[in-house]
Amino acid sequence: HVRSLCEELHPADVADLFEQISDDQRKALVGILGQMLDPVTLVEVDEDVRDLIIEAMPTGQLADAVSELDTDDAAFVLEDMDEEARLEVLAEVPVAERLALLSALDYEDETAGRLMQREVFAAPAYWTVGQIIDRLRSPEELPETFYEVFVIDPAFKVIGSVPLAQFLRNPRETVIGDLVGEEELRRIPADMDQEEVAYLFEKYNLISAPVVDKGDRLVGMITVDDVVEIVHEETHEDMLALAGVEAEQSGISGSLRATVSSRFSWLAVNLFTAILASVVISFFDATLEQAVAVAILMPIVASMGGNAGTQTLTVAVRNLATRELTAANALRIVGRETLVGLINGCAFAVLMGTIAGVWYGTIGGGGGADAGLVLGLVLAAAMIINMIMAGLSGILIPLVLQRAGADPAVSSAVFVTTVTDIVGFFAFLGLAAIFIVG
Amino acid sequence: HVRSLCEELHPADVADLFEQISDDQRKALVGILGQMLDPVTLVEVDEDVRDLIIEAMPTGQLADAVSELDTDDAAFVLEDMDEEARLEVLAEVPVAERLALLSALDYEDETAGRLMQREVFAAPAYWTVGQIIDRLRSPEELPETFYEVFVIDPAFKVIGSVPLAQFLRNPRETVIGDLVGEEELRRIPADMDQEEVAYLFEKYNLISAPVVDKGDRLVGMITVDDVVEIVHEETHEDMLALAGVEAEQSGISGSLRATVSSRFSWLAVNLFTAILASVVISFFDATLEQAVAVAILMPIVASMGGNAGTQTLTVAVRNLATRELTAANALRIVGRETLVGLINGCAFAVLMGTIAGVWYGTIGGGGGADAGLVLGLVLAAAMIINMIMAGLSGILIPLVLQRAGADPAVSSAVFVTTVTDIVGFFAFLGLAAIFIVG
Ligand SMILES: [Mg+2]
Ligand SMILES: [Mg+2]
Ligand SMILES: [Mg+2]
Ligand SMILES: [Mg+2]
Ligand SMILES: [Mg+2]
Ligand SMILES: [Mg+2]
Ligand SMILES: [Mg+2]
Ligand SMILES: [Mg+2]
Ligand SMILES: [Mg+2]
Ligand SMILES: [Mg+2]
Ligand SMILES: [Mg+2]
Ligand SMILES: [Mg+2]
Ligand SMILES: [Mg+2]
Repeated sequence: HVRSLCEELHPADVADLFEQISDDQRKALVGILGQMLDPVTLVEVDEDVRDLIIEAMPTGQLADAVSELDTDDAAFVLEDMDEEARLEVLAEVPVAERLALLSALDYEDETAGRLMQREVFAAPAYWTVGQIIDRLRSPEELPETFYEVFVIDPAFKVIGSVPLAQFLRNPRETVIGDLVGEEELRRIPADMDQEEVAYLFEKYNLISAPVVDKGDRLVGMITVDDVVEIVHEETHEDMLALAGVEAEQSGISGSLRATVSSRFSWLAVNLFTAILASVVISFFDATLEQAVAVAILMPIVASMGGNAGTQTLTVAVRNLATRELTAANALRIVGRETLVGLINGCAFAVLMGTIAGVWYGTIGGGGGADAGLVLGLVLAAAMIINMIMAGLSGILIPLVLQRAGADPAVSSAVFVTTVTDIVGFFAFLGLAAIFIVG
Repeated sequence: HVRSLCEELHPADVADLFEQISDDQRKALVGILGQMLDPVTLVEVDEDVRDLIIEAMPTGQLADAVSELDTDDAAFVLEDMDEEARLEVLAEVPVAERLALLSALDYEDETAGRLMQREVFAAPAYWTVGQIIDRLRSPEELPETFYEVFVIDPAFKVIGSVPLAQFLRNPRETVIGDLVGEEELRRIPADMDQEEVAYLFEKYNLISAPVVDKGDRLVGMITVDDVVEIVHEETHEDMLALAGVEAEQSGISGSLRATVSSRFSWLAVNLFTAILASVVISFFDATLEQAVAVAILMPIVASMGGNAGTQTLTVAVRNLATRELTAANALRIVGRETLVGLINGCAFAVLMGTIAGVWYGTIGGGGGADAGLVLGLVLAAAMIINMIMAGLSGILIPLVLQRAGADPAVSSAVFVTTVTDIVGFFAFLGLAAIFIVG
């Protein structure tokens, strides 16, 4: 019953089913489905669940699955297995496919070489449309899906590409080489980073692209469906990184232990910076003792700075990722963000300064006759200083990290909030020490 | 000179060029390029820059550009123009295309109907491969690119689809209807939300999909290149929303005024919640006066809670977007996140409680003989309480917002940090009032 149910489902739906059930049920389902388990399911399922399915599958069945998949998908399944298990599986894969897989795994993770499939369709430039159609109708092994005919020279260098829709429009006698357009073909070097690949696909609206080796020879093809996955993965990574979560451990089907420990490390960094901020506050213990209003209001300065800094930071990280923010306009944008900080800083300084001045009567400010006014002014000044610093650090920190070769999404947030906490407390308490209790 | 340079560039690169130069240069470039400006450039360029280019173009040229584009791209360009200008342009568009565009604009923004192009290629089920190839070779107007042949019945209902690569493999005499596979065809209803469309494309690895009306009749086609744009736009939106930035105003080529005011509104909400937190603190002014160590340490409790809450929240928003978090597993995940909060809360409570107990000697805690120990214990207890609340609110708030039909990315962050600030200050200061100065 379960079998006939799963047979009708798309592998992506079977993958979803696997994700929803418990570990024991997962193992049982692998047993029930047996050879009927579509290998594509392994590609579609979450990493943690995949590990479990792979363990539950007999080595022979796994080897069959891996041979059936396109090389990119097979490499994707194999790459996360441990060395020993992987070699065991590969030993049972037919030799031609085994060699293709070993060389796919030779490319570094997250490069075009790892992302590409070796199954491509290419034709020499002197072939005619008729010859190519006849070739396609022959029962030879060809990639299951492709969207353009890559045109190659005798040295296997790609000289162009003809989309199938355009190819079909031409009479049988047309020579394919004559169809190669003027439009520049985007060749992907095999060692290109996957983020760069995604950028090219998105910018030039590509459906597939040829991957070439150092000698410009065709070695594979990347298709847009895999790029959609990358776009998702990369923004997913950035989004979680900004909140201090490692993407690898963010799946909600993963182990509790992994989740707890991955969140721990970021919180530990945050604890350290929070202690730093408290150390700054402790310098002003005398001020706090004399004017309790200062203690009551100080979180506001830090909080507004932290939020303004996070706004700028997120915009910076996004615009770095989409390459709207470049070396060419960086200086202008730094000025712009600082100005935004200044303007909003002044607006909130007036607002909050007034509130603080009025509120003062009930919360006790210490100091002289015009104490309410002074407290308001001190708070306003501290807010302006901190919001300028928020804009400045929100844009400069990711730019500097990127320049230094680090991922601006990963560590920027902690630096920015450290700056806004420390500057905020220092400015407000320092000014209070001078003008209120001084 | 500039002309011949731009002629060789891809429209996406010309769009980048437009984005990098100043407003005056943009207007000048429109003039210099004249009719040579590829209409696709209008689609590829940022919104603010597009408005400027459109203004600088003569109405006739804009009408030509709009007629040349696929309906989806033309609608994309027209949708943001003001009513009057749009009607002026449409008046100069040939009547057939004008009607197509008006009905495209009739579909709501961010639906499949708006996203689809009306240019499709479909064949009746009884046609043969040979007939279709001959039809394609005739000089009739057909969509420039397509990736599959949609197979329709006499009532224009889609009964299946044949990918071009598969189509090409078959001899001329094969009837196309026989090639329609068993695999379920994903038909997109014209009123489906674009987020749902992107989800289907990503899940089922689609390259294109037929769009159907309420009677299941073929009305258009959505292609993956436009979906890649949506995936980007939607995650972009969520990421910025979490940081309190409206996506519309996040472009760094927009006006300063728009940026300042869009950031202002979120900061204003934050100011309100920061004041709320200060009000909570002010209840405990007597405690703060007697034990300045409490004032020094209190930001740590709030900060750790805020960060833990943001971690959980971001994971929740991501997993809601990718539909890993559903009604079926929501309860389990709420329990899981609360447990993560409890475990990390205990870990950091021990760590920070110890630090506070030791540090106490130098920062002055007030109270009795074992005051250092008591301060450490109070801090530890407050941290555990706040981190549990962080986990709980980080998962519950986006779930409740989603259930209520609101976008969980937009307003969750402010609720979560309000909860962690208020609970953090209340727990720490309340316990301090009882056990330290009480
Ligand atoms: Mg899934
Ligand atoms: Mg992997
Ligand atoms: Mg694009
Ligand atoms: Mg693939
Ligand atoms: Mg990466
Ligand atoms: Mg990245
Ligand atoms: Mg651009
Ligand atoms: Mg048209
Ligand atoms: Mg729009
Ligand atoms: Mg997919
Ligand atoms: Mg399109
Ligand atoms: Mg949306
Ligand atoms: Mg959304």
